[in-house]
Amino acid sequence: MTVSPFDHPLLSGLLGDEETARQFSADAELAAMLAFERALAEAEAGEGVIGREAADAIVAALASFEPDVAALRNAVARDGVVVPELVRQLRSAVGAPHGDKVHFGATSQDVVDTALVLRLKPVVERLDALLAEAAAKLAAVEKRFGARPLMGRTRMQAAIEITVADRVRAWREPVERNRARLAAIRHELLVVQFGGAAGTLEKLGDKALAVRKSLAEKLGLHDAPQWHSQRDRLADFAGLLSLITGSLGKFGQDVALMAQDGSEIALAGGGGSSAMPHKQNPVAAEVLVTLARFNATQLSGMHHALVHEQERSGSAWTLEWLLLPQMAVSAAAALRQAAALAGQIESIGARPGN
Amino acid sequence: MTVSPFDHPLLSGLLGDEETARQFSADAELAAMLAFERALAEAEAGEGVIGREAADAIVAALASFEPDVAALRNAVARDGVVVPELVRQLRSAVGAPHGDKVHFGATSQDVVDTALVLRLKPVVERLDALLAEAAAKLAAVEKRFGARPLMGRTRMQAAIEITVADRVRAWREPVERNRARLAAIRHELLVVQFGGAAGTLEKLGDKALAVRKSLAEKLGLHDAPQWHSQRDRLADFAGLLSLITGSLGKFGQDVALMAQDGSEIALAGGGGSSAMPHKQNPVAAEVLVTLARFNATQLSGMHHALVHEQERSGSAWTLEWLLLPQMAVSAAAALRQAAALAGQIESIGARPGN
Amino acid sequence: MTVSPFDHPLLSGLLGDEETARQFSADAELAAMLAFERALAEAEAGEGVIGREAADAIVAALASFEPDVAALRNAVARDGVVVPELVRQLRSAVGAPHGDKVHFGATSQDVVDTALVLRLKPVVERLDALLAEAAAKLAAVEKRFGARPLMGRTRMQAAIEITVADRVRAWREPVERNRARLAAIRHELLVVQFGGAAGTLEKLGDKALAVRKSLAEKLGLHDAPQWHSQRDRLADFAGLLSLITGSLGKFGQDVALMAQDGSEIALAGGGGSSAMPHKQNPVAAEVLVTLARFNATQLSGMHHALVHEQERSGSAWTLEWLLLPQMAVSAAAALRQAAALAGQIESIGARPGN
Amino acid sequence: MTVSPFDHPLLSGLLGDEETARQFSADAELAAMLAFERALAEAEAGEGVIGREAADAIVAALASFEPDVAALRNAVARDGVVVPELVRQLRSAVGAPHGDKVHFGATSQDVVDTALVLRLKPVVERLDALLAEAAAKLAAVEKRFGARPLMGRTRMQAAIEITVADRVRAWREPVERNRARLAAIRHELLVVQFGGAAGTLEKLGDKALAVRKSLAEKLGLHDAPQWHSQRDRLADFAGLLSLITGSLGKFGQDVALMAQDGSEIALAGGGGSSAMPHKQNPVAAEVLVTLARFNATQLSGMHHALVHEQERSGSAWTLEWLLLPQMAVSAAAALRQAAALAGQIESIGARPGN
Repeated sequence: MTVSPFDHPLLSGLLGDEETARQFSADAELAAMLAFERALAEAEAGEGVIGREAADAIVAALASFEPDVAALRNAVARDGVVVPELVRQLRSAVGAPHGDKVHFGATSQDVVDTALVLRLKPVVERLDALLAEAAAKLAAVEKRFGARPLMGRTRMQAAIEITVADRVRAWREPVERNRARLAAIRHELLVVQFGGAAGTLEKLGDKALAVRKSLAEKLGLHDAPQWHSQRDRLADFAGLLSLITGSLGKFGQDVALMAQDGSEIALAGGGGSSAMPHKQNPVAAEVLVTLARFNATQLSGMHHALVHEQERSGSAWTLEWLLLPQMAVSAAAALRQAAALAGQIESIGARPGN
Repeated sequence: MTVSPFDHPLLSGLLGDEETARQFSADAELAAMLAFERALAEAEAGEGVIGREAADAIVAALASFEPDVAALRNAVARDGVVVPELVRQLRSAVGAPHGDKVHFGATSQDVVDTALVLRLKPVVERLDALLAEAAAKLAAVEKRFGARPLMGRTRMQAAIEITVADRVRAWREPVERNRARLAAIRHELLVVQFGGAAGTLEKLGDKALAVRKSLAEKLGLHDAPQWHSQRDRLADFAGLLSLITGSLGKFGQDVALMAQDGSEIALAGGGGSSAMPHKQNPVAAEVLVTLARFNATQLSGMHHALVHEQERSGSAWTLEWLLLPQMAVSAAAALRQAAALAGQIESIGARPGN
Repeated sequence: MTVSPFDHPLLSGLLGDEETARQFSADAELAAMLAFERALAEAEAGEGVIGREAADAIVAALASFEPDVAALRNAVARDGVVVPELVRQLRSAVGAPHGDKVHFGATSQDVVDTALVLRLKPVVERLDALLAEAAAKLAAVEKRFGARPLMGRTRMQAAIEITVADRVRAWREPVERNRARLAAIRHELLVVQFGGAAGTLEKLGDKALAVRKSLAEKLGLHDAPQWHSQRDRLADFAGLLSLITGSLGKFGQDVALMAQDGSEIALAGGGGSSAMPHKQNPVAAEVLVTLARFNATQLSGMHHALVHEQERSGSAWTLEWLLLPQMAVSAAAALRQAAALAGQIESIGARPGN
Repeated sequence: MTVSPFDHPLLSGLLGDEETARQFSADAELAAMLAFERALAEAEAGEGVIGREAADAIVAALASFEPDVAALRNAVARDGVVVPELVRQLRSAVGAPHGDKVHFGATSQDVVDTALVLRLKPVVERLDALLAEAAAKLAAVEKRFGARPLMGRTRMQAAIEITVADRVRAWREPVERNRARLAAIRHELLVVQFGGAAGTLEKLGDKALAVRKSLAEKLGLHDAPQWHSQRDRLADFAGLLSLITGSLGKFGQDVALMAQDGSEIALAGGGGSSAMPHKQNPVAAEVLVTLARFNATQLSGMHHALVHEQERSGSAWTLEWLLLPQMAVSAAAALRQAAALAGQIESIGARPGN
């Protein structure tokens, strides 16, 4: 089924980004969850919380573990989260006497949140590369056409003449600031979540901090105190995703307005019409506006999810699952389309000699 | 790929509704689009706009038409909409001399919008049935337990004793009002969209209104002047979807609060925990809150899409595609979960003799 | 102080509507609250719940009652609602032996919600009149210039020629549908709220329904069962407010785009610039877009407020106070500006002979 | 008039913050605008763009200038912005021969945006102080009661015992991270806007950068290239305002839930009820949830305003005016209420000996 355009066999080429979307597939999520359980077993064996043999048995079982997906789906409908059934299957796969050492001292949220962060890491890398590419493509437009005159427009009215560089700067500079923002929050965002049943790692005694630190290292994440009910890192990241799409929405809107005028910009490609074969629609420009407004809409929900009651809110947590993946794919899709649109610009501003 | 939980192999059992989601699959959309083209050919032949032979050829070709999905996907990425390529494929399937009569006088938006409304019809029927079921399940709770005393709570504080019926009424009555609202907007919502290139049906001359009326009849929709840039019907429907989830969110929140107290409600089933096997989490109640906040978030975007510029806004239109299907599935999922939750109530209020 | 432009000495002329805003002043709210207490005393005396002398004493005291506003403000900061202190002052003004009959059997929410609905009644009338005026002004534009040719534009590109009437219809028809929607929800919206401490009118015994009916009649409202925790009527009304602004936002956006082009529309007036005295900015058109996006934003919060826990949610209820008044003023302001903008149109479409 | 609770004579004590609100009064805005014009004259005289005598005349006139507020209000309704009429009045006050040197080379947006940033500076300082106070108050709660046991609750169900410190940490740590975020964006946020008619400072020739640098210095702001159509700094700041209220909303929600339980927390004060004088409502806790959901709602609009077309968007710019001041006051009000609520905690967790 294909309720969301981001998963749609026809629409995702327009509105999605395959590399980012892949991180939010069920397969990628399960793989990240298994990586958590593996690293946990190793970290706990390293600190003597579980035996080395138990850890070896868990790692060995994980190597060939194939989840029963139908059972997982039924369990999610009942439990609200996949982890209890996944752990049950894992323990069964490991078998006696070590099965009960799987997931020792951990809770569902540790697995879900850390598995999310593990996949946000390549998403952050993808976004960083796309931000760099979009900035470079816009800089190339600026370099090639920047000196040309262009009518500046304020409040939808012709104002005074500016240059193409003046306008392109307003597209490029926020891309660069957003890349700097991404670098600035990267360390804070990419942190392990490990707290146990209610955040106190009560089963790990005085080994708790050492296990958490080792777990983070093995997963390539930063260590941090548990943050299961403190969702500001995710809301802040969502804000950056929407800053990215919002600033690119301005680029798209400007290009669409220039394309309407007809003389200010020439785009290669452009979309066809079923009624008027001669038309060239500025599809990529429009999509940038769409994605900007989509993320501006979603961001609100991520901030509502900050009201996360007590030690774990089923309702606020699940709300994040409905919002954040789509926001990340939107940001990547917008960057991809922005780079493509910049590359489509064959002419902008007044042509020399005109 | 599975960016959205509504399409997710593991999560959609919790957060989705299969019957509603099916209407938003690519297959259902393509089938509705082909139904439009078929009905259009027949209506145009009926009014003498195209020949009877042309219509017969189109209908015959449609009966065995298999779209080239990969080509459709590529075309969407270029054109922003599937219709130009779909029509191209259809015309090719029909072949000379009648191929160019496919889609005669129509435009992409006619196809996309009418195909949407065609699928909203069963969605409306599904919602109506689910509203009736949820209301009945709540009425049954009221009948069985309504006379029991319950502590009324205002501003999160014990106030005075009320009865179970007093509280259940606040869950049931909005469901019934929302069912009445659905009935009230049904006629206005389920209307054909047919306007041609820029809304004037300029190719159909004085046959335009008769063709539109006949097209609507053949599709089982109501006739209406073209509304390609007037999106208030869809925004109004989206508002109702969010009224449905919002009122059920209150039901869910109340049940979750009663479940926390522990003595006011007893639920059969309930979700398991990976860390604490004895816990019974009120998962359906939490999900109702999640879906309420999700739709409250999305609704904003549907109202932004009212700012639909000129005769067709690529950006505002595409924004609807990203929002409305998920809102409809959320409403159906919430109704499904609400009926299930009402059915799980084994006891509510003070037990007799306690 | 003037945090909100709707209250701002400089900005409210642009963004507000005085007649609507007046209904949301503290004075109007207090007057409506006192009208509630007066009607309640009379209704309760009529049904023998309190003595006639008590009612006479209350009505007499109310005639000259001047609240201590500083004390009210302090009390709101403590109680979260003005009613407890207002009732205390009223009882003191009535004095022994009848003072304790003030507010008998009622609670704060009865007063606040009914006082809101009392003021929504003139707001609904104001909106109805403004909708009629905006529709008439747009119809006049259509009548005067409708036959002129205009370039139809789809996806920001010139498509085919349409007429001015084709475009103006897309501005006018939603105004008329929204007027019909307002008429349709009027009865459901303008209902009394009367439930007592926890919604059961427990102090009124078998007189409860008769008192409520009489109270509604005296206030010119419709009777209805208490709805203190069922907020769908208000959320539905908020949706209509945003449908109004959203559809007018499309009108504003279209005019702004036509004004940019320069040849398609001529507007009388228009705003000045501090840097370029010759410029004529389409200020009213821009403001319509602003107000559309403002209400589309606020609407989300009104739907979050549907998750109104138990018998009274302090947090969800207070959220409505922050949103609904501004939405109502925005809708009225947009209608006012839309009528003004329609009146400013000196020419639209191609001039005859050009 | 008092459409917004933040300006309301009765409600602003509950929902507002006087010190922050004062920065958004018309008086404060006009004072900041005049400070801009004064500093501009001095900076331009310093660089030889205007004569020293002209600057002296402007500074002298500004010292006693009293704007005609009624004329300003009328002008805003026409021009959409106060600056053209304010500059006209100023030039008239300065008179010949220097009057035309007022506002030389500047445009309305330079004045409005820089006057906003000038007032955000004390707002940032106020927020920083309030964040420090809230963190300190929460740390004091942690110190006093932190060792007490408390039932940890996950998914609204009792889980395992934790300590009071474990829960308070989840309230305090985001406050501290938000304080760090405020410090991190401070430099980027508090920058001058100076670009002239269309952003190119075309009237200042090769003195442009020197004048801008000097203008920033005189105003106590950082220098930066013009950003008139790049609104990411403001949207990012708005995001932080909502992170602040959102995390405090979790604190409020938790306290309201503990207050419902009755045995987990004891609060001094608490709000009264008009129907049940014995009740103690957790008003401050509820207000924190309200303000969290309010800002989560508004934030969406600030991100829509990123789609700021061309060199100046009247509609997107005006939208910011409707949103940002209320968001800033909400954040300050929430911090004020959070500190008060922390101070009201007389007991939390299980009392020793119980």
